[in-house]
Amino acid sequence: MHRFETIGVIAKRDDGPRLRSTVERLVAHLARRGLAMLADPDTTKLIESGGAGHDSADLGERCDLIIVVGGDGTFLSAARAMAPHGVPLVGINLGRLGFLVDVSPDHLEASLDQILGGHYAVDDRAVLEARLDGSEHIEWALNDIVIHKWNTVRMVELGIFVDGHFVNAQRSDGLIVSTPTGSTAYALSGGGPLVHPALDALLLVPICPHTLSNRPLVVGGESLIEVRLCHQESDQVRLTCDGQTHLPLDDGARVRIRRSPHRARLLHPPGHDHFGILRAKLGWGGHPQYESPC
Amino acid sequence: MHRFETIGVIAKRDDGPRLRSTVERLVAHLARRGLAMLADPDTTKLIESGGAGHDSADLGERCDLIIVVGGDGTFLSAARAMAPHGVPLVGINLGRLGFLVDVSPDHLEASLDQILGGHYAVDDRAVLEARLDGSEHIEWALNDIVIHKWNTVRMVELGIFVDGHFVNAQRSDGLIVSTPTGSTAYALSGGGPLVHPALDALLLVPICPHTLSNRPLVVGGESLIEVRLCHQESDQVRLTCDGQTHLPLDDGARVRIRRSPHRARLLHPPGHDHFGILRAKLGWGGHPQYESPC
Amino acid sequence: MHRFETIGVIAKRDDGPRLRSTVERLVAHLARRGLAMLADPDTTKLIESGGAGHDSADLGERCDLIIVVGGDGTFLSAARAMAPHGVPLVGINLGRLGFLVDVSPDHLEASLDQILGGHYAVDDRAVLEARLDGSEHIEWALNDIVIHKWNTVRMVELGIFVDGHFVNAQRSDGLIVSTPTGSTAYALSGGGPLVHPALDALLLVPICPHTLSNRPLVVGGESLIEVRLCHQESDQVRLTCDGQTHLPLDDGARVRIRRSPHRARLLHPPGHDHFGILRAKLGWGGHPQYESPC
Amino acid sequence: MHRFETIGVIAKRDDGPRLRSTVERLVAHLARRGLAMLADPDTTKLIESGGAGHDSADLGERCDLIIVVGGDGTFLSAARAMAPHGVPLVGINLGRLGFLVDVSPDHLEASLDQILGGHYAVDDRAVLEARLDGSEHIEWALNDIVIHKWNTVRMVELGIFVDGHFVNAQRSDGLIVSTPTGSTAYALSGGGPLVHPALDALLLVPICPHTLSNRPLVVGGESLIEVRLCHQESDQVRLTCDGQTHLPLDDGARVRIRRSPHRARLLHPPGHDHFGILRAKLGWGGHPQYESPC
Repeated sequence: MHRFETIGVIAKRDDGPRLRSTVERLVAHLARRGLAMLADPDTTKLIESGGAGHDSADLGERCDLIIVVGGDGTFLSAARAMAPHGVPLVGINLGRLGFLVDVSPDHLEASLDQILGGHYAVDDRAVLEARLDGSEHIEWALNDIVIHKWNTVRMVELGIFVDGHFVNAQRSDGLIVSTPTGSTAYALSGGGPLVHPALDALLLVPICPHTLSNRPLVVGGESLIEVRLCHQESDQVRLTCDGQTHLPLDDGARVRIRRSPHRARLLHPPGHDHFGILRAKLGWGGHPQYESPC
Repeated sequence: MHRFETIGVIAKRDDGPRLRSTVERLVAHLARRGLAMLADPDTTKLIESGGAGHDSADLGERCDLIIVVGGDGTFLSAARAMAPHGVPLVGINLGRLGFLVDVSPDHLEASLDQILGGHYAVDDRAVLEARLDGSEHIEWALNDIVIHKWNTVRMVELGIFVDGHFVNAQRSDGLIVSTPTGSTAYALSGGGPLVHPALDALLLVPICPHTLSNRPLVVGGESLIEVRLCHQESDQVRLTCDGQTHLPLDDGARVRIRRSPHRARLLHPPGHDHFGILRAKLGWGGHPQYESPC
Repeated sequence: MHRFETIGVIAKRDDGPRLRSTVERLVAHLARRGLAMLADPDTTKLIESGGAGHDSADLGERCDLIIVVGGDGTFLSAARAMAPHGVPLVGINLGRLGFLVDVSPDHLEASLDQILGGHYAVDDRAVLEARLDGSEHIEWALNDIVIHKWNTVRMVELGIFVDGHFVNAQRSDGLIVSTPTGSTAYALSGGGPLVHPALDALLLVPICPHTLSNRPLVVGGESLIEVRLCHQESDQVRLTCDGQTHLPLDDGARVRIRRSPHRARLLHPPGHDHFGILRAKLGWGGHPQYESPC
Repeated sequence: MHRFETIGVIAKRDDGPRLRSTVERLVAHLARRGLAMLADPDTTKLIESGGAGHDSADLGERCDLIIVVGGDGTFLSAARAMAPHGVPLVGINLGRLGFLVDVSPDHLEASLDQILGGHYAVDDRAVLEARLDGSEHIEWALNDIVIHKWNTVRMVELGIFVDGHFVNAQRSDGLIVSTPTGSTAYALSGGGPLVHPALDALLLVPICPHTLSNRPLVVGGESLIEVRLCHQESDQVRLTCDGQTHLPLDDGARVRIRRSPHRARLLHPPGHDHFGILRAKLGWGGHPQYESPC
């Protein structure tokens, strides 16, 4: 079992009382357990004698575990930053269950004690990487990489390839390339299916496609997705990662998207139930008569 | 390389002139090549001196290759019958491209010569098997196994489990459990995504679900799907395989669906292009500017 | 203002304690107000000294108002029965808001007093009628008339006409012809839009259509919809009204569906809010900042 | 019958040979018939001795008929410009049928002769107008008015009201408010239904809504739609008309959209068949056995 000795804390950028008190309880609990604690520059401001903040590279190198306090958005950002470092993450929500932040502040101390004591489920999630043809720059995403119109009211036209095979030329508002993790996020709003996070697959969801039969497509996780732009005016298409960071694409750009060799490692307290989270978040009906094990 | 010496022929049940002339050309070509030919009982009637017909068990045991002449429906039925025998299949359409019958009669002789000469792509497809709790009987399907209302105007209520984990209790017209192969068939009409046939995955698509968030679900190919019936009156739910065979389910029934250890082995002449078939069948736009390799 | 002197009561067929106590309170309240009360044969059994029950024709002729106690299903059945008589209806739910039964038992007496005192909103809803070519028999529906496969696993093929104009030949599991009222029911599960009940329109929603571009269609309320069957085997297509009554269709049948000259008249206590019911039933987010009048 | 004496010509901005030859034939035919012809500034460049071009106000005031040569996009732009003037329009496509440009260049002269001779069907289409609270400026649209995110990767939050009644607070990429004419355009890509152009209705289609039950909504054509923005940063939401013109919306903006008192008057040669165009454009199956009149 991995020993957790240095714990990083990354909190939502927000200083509401709920966040503040949750971070305080967390810090106090880590201190009680005698663990070293490092916070990122924003979070450290919430902590009395929090010291100077640490940037993600520093947190990634020095921490054995990152505790995220906030919502799924905060978790996505932390997970992208930790992906190259392989540090596991735990997500504490602020009272509202997220797909990624599944530890309730009500059981913060007890849940942490379980995890710190080695009682947890490891949940490795695929991370996407995007690389522009002719560039060394890599963008990462845990949910999705979206290539979409920007600054224009016109559709984009994209040429889609999978493993070098031409798929189609698509006119749409854009294309979502999603991990199974992202299948409950923007891809779902775009009409995509729910994909189990343990399945090694990528999801391609066209956004408002002109052709009605341009349906969501699920391909193997090892696939190389290439998206080519054609006849685009300057800065009318962008690439966005997890709905958080974006960069402009030029006409003629070729974007290659694939599953990264890095993975995001999520830790859950015992009893984590993926379908239970789906039922809660999507308002699915349960029924006592069925809820016994097979 | 496999030697093809005994060839089975299974044709659509239909005696239109197109079918008749295609079968005649096929039989003549196999004779010219000096290969043994066996036909199923219906097909043999189309063939002069076709002899007695052979049932599927016989074809499965004695043939090295099955040639199907007809549409996707004929192919599905032949593939289910051949699944336990592991005999590969080639599909010749009657002038209209199918997802499964991809050899055009225009190039029948040339395409067959390529395949018989060992120049082909092997395309192993997952097969589903369904087993009722408490029964030894197994049903197979290449496209999908559907559990659906029957003889009633009321919705069914199904309890869904994946690998023993409760997913949800669903009120709908039924549930489609589909292979990637079936993702272009009934599952697509029900709102499911297109799943690449090389991905080891199963697709669960609710039919007209009462709850709008009961979206299609993609899970790993090794998953055990269990569907439980509750409070159903007699013969109001049936299980249908590939839209072709069906059996009644009683109240309290538990159906277990999983990928079979058998696979359907499809052979394609060189140049088979999965996305090209999707483009042709779904009316997707291509575009010359993109249709060069990456 | 209409005087309400004779009140009909139609309750759900169910004898749970919640139904029984709601009916008892209702009956007691009508007695206190000195109103004559008639119940249908099933409901009268729930009422001490309820006397003999009255069939729908009798209720329709003698009552000034029908009070329905139950869910939307009970209301649909009562509304169909009352359509030819023009008697208004009020719906009392059993603790769970319905689209049609919008009076909570918590305010049963107060809400009824408002309505009996003439303080109510009139909400006339379109009713559909279906007639088979060559028959005098008419079927009515408040939600929808569905022409669907029955007793078969194969799709049906339907020829659709609007006002004598050919629309398309459709292969599907069936066709839902819905009123705006029915747009929150089966048509919604089939992918149809929400249609405001005050709009004079009909909705045609194909069920799992083979052709992906066979999308839901909204036409004027005065349209004559004709559905023709072709090459159907015996008793493989049925016509179902409101998911409650059904009749077999023969091969070659032509069904004509139009808005009936009858309407279902719903009465609501003051403050009825159609969009508020949609928000509650569909789990739409509201937001305090917007919820002030324009 | 209306006399057509002065004819305006508005062509696509494009100088391909097909456009040029179609405009030449059109001009020659109008000359042969002794009709006055006025062209807009771009079109006049395509015409030998075309004279100076005329702006839309001038065309609107002086012409009895506008002939549009191009695709649906050209027609939309011309129809918006002509809406305040009430001049009828005819659309000639460039060889590919459009929803609006339904006269084929193959029958240009014959079709025009029919129309000029008074043999045509009048097809009045609703036009939308949008007005910002506190401004006199009006925007028009024949297809749709879209309020959508701009220059940002984040969803917008919109408060939607119909006739002063709060509908919902919606997080999405935007909202499409569409006429029946626009129901075959962007609204269809966004998941909306097809609405018959003779139905007096408006369509509200959320674009990739966060809440899955935020389905398309159809309301009466006389409805006043109000959309309120909340907590938006500067220039992150725009209002776009027919996908062609757009203007920025500030935080706190209230946009009122309603059917304009103006209508776009389309003229069709005899035999115009709305469902026939849908069948052709959407690839719906027809079938000889049904295609006889009722």
